[in-house]
Amino acid sequence: MLRPRARPAGDLLELWLDEHRRDTRIAELARAAAAAGVRCRRVPRAELQRAAGGVKHQGVLAIMRSPKPPADLARYVEQIPSPKLILLLDGVQDPHNLGAILRVAGAAGAAAVVLPKVGACPINAAVRRAAVGAAELVPVFYVANLARTMRALRRRGLWIIGADAAADRDVAEMDFHTDIAIALGGEGRGLRRLTRAHCDQVARIPLRGVASLNVAVAAGIFLYEARRGISP
Amino acid sequence: MLRPRARPAGDLLELWLDEHRRDTRIAELARAAAAAGVRCRRVPRAELQRAAGGVKHQGVLAIMRSPKPPADLARYVEQIPSPKLILLLDGVQDPHNLGAILRVAGAAGAAAVVLPKVGACPINAAVRRAAVGAAELVPVFYVANLARTMRALRRRGLWIIGADAAADRDVAEMDFHTDIAIALGGEGRGLRRLTRAHCDQVARIPLRGVASLNVAVAAGIFLYEARRGISP
Repeated sequence: MLRPRARPAGDLLELWLDEHRRDTRIAELARAAAAAGVRCRRVPRAELQRAAGGVKHQGVLAIMRSPKPPADLARYVEQIPSPKLILLLDGVQDPHNLGAILRVAGAAGAAAVVLPKVGACPINAAVRRAAVGAAELVPVFYVANLARTMRALRRRGLWIIGADAAADRDVAEMDFHTDIAIALGGEGRGLRRLTRAHCDQVARIPLRGVASLNVAVAAGIFLYEARRGISP
Repeated sequence: MLRPRARPAGDLLELWLDEHRRDTRIAELARAAAAAGVRCRRVPRAELQRAAGGVKHQGVLAIMRSPKPPADLARYVEQIPSPKLILLLDGVQDPHNLGAILRVAGAAGAAAVVLPKVGACPINAAVRRAAVGAAELVPVFYVANLARTMRALRRRGLWIIGADAAADRDVAEMDFHTDIAIALGGEGRGLRRLTRAHCDQVARIPLRGVASLNVAVAAGIFLYEARRGISP
């Protein structure tokens, strides 16, 4: 039996319960959760299995807040296991976009999302709403200087791939079999010159008739290309 | 020299001019466009080349409105060349999402986007704004009965792949080497039961820790998987 009090209640975001289980143990659990103010969701078994990612479950999944990452991104990146996947956003300002990005970053297994302190959207209520629960799934770091952060990541062995519509190579040709950081520009503009200069490589999403994609859509395509490369 | 009057002016959406060309011919063209009320954009040469999709250009690209499609989707689908790629949206309601979807559908080379007449967002100013010029790039069809449309598409040889978080197979395993329609559910819910029943196959985007993705992000991942399959 899961003990809601075993960890601070604030870390338990949601309980997912197999919608086919209607026994007393699950009913008790749902009651205890409700009493503790934890939201329960009845989900199809297949969905529960996907979300558990192959881990054995008994019809219950607790969605926990990520452990608070250290203040220092570089130290955090050293601690997480390989293959490491980090998303760098060179200034995303729209909360709807940032929420959708946090959601897909979590879904694709990214270990962190990094934004500049100046010129990027903070994690506010609109972001949380668009993230549909994923705002707590991936640690988000706001850094004073993105270029300096990129140098620190490179020193720690990450290969930085920037998204650039004018790149010669297609994202589908990239080799993602290593620790990777993906760098994306903000809405309506590509990577800033200095950010681009700090990439090891740039790649494009092939586009017909348009100059760019919505930044959350571009993030999804890049992250799932990386994921495909990491775990084929 | 491009003649702005050769087609009705309303079909000419925008002129893209190579930012490195500063000669008199290009200046004349920019003046003529301005006089005709056509917006000009100076773009990097590499971007112009991408957008031209391998077609020979002389530093100028005219972004045209798609020819008005026939009222009947099935007849239109018969006329377009293979490999055909169609996107079916089982009720997308948010204009920001629909705009981002039209943009990525155009970019990935989809020939049509299909929505139900009831319960889907119309093409309004908010959609056009989010589509950043791509609202006219792909013909959009609003149909009375999505299930009937799906049957008509299947009769014309299209293979319909539905997005479903509970599917057994990963979208990256799908065979896209044929004429394809991709079916996606609206925001916050999957395909409706009847829509799902009309798919030839369902596939999932593998997700960790979240139940679903933003629908525009999911559309981008599916469309680029299909594009990868069609033109590797």
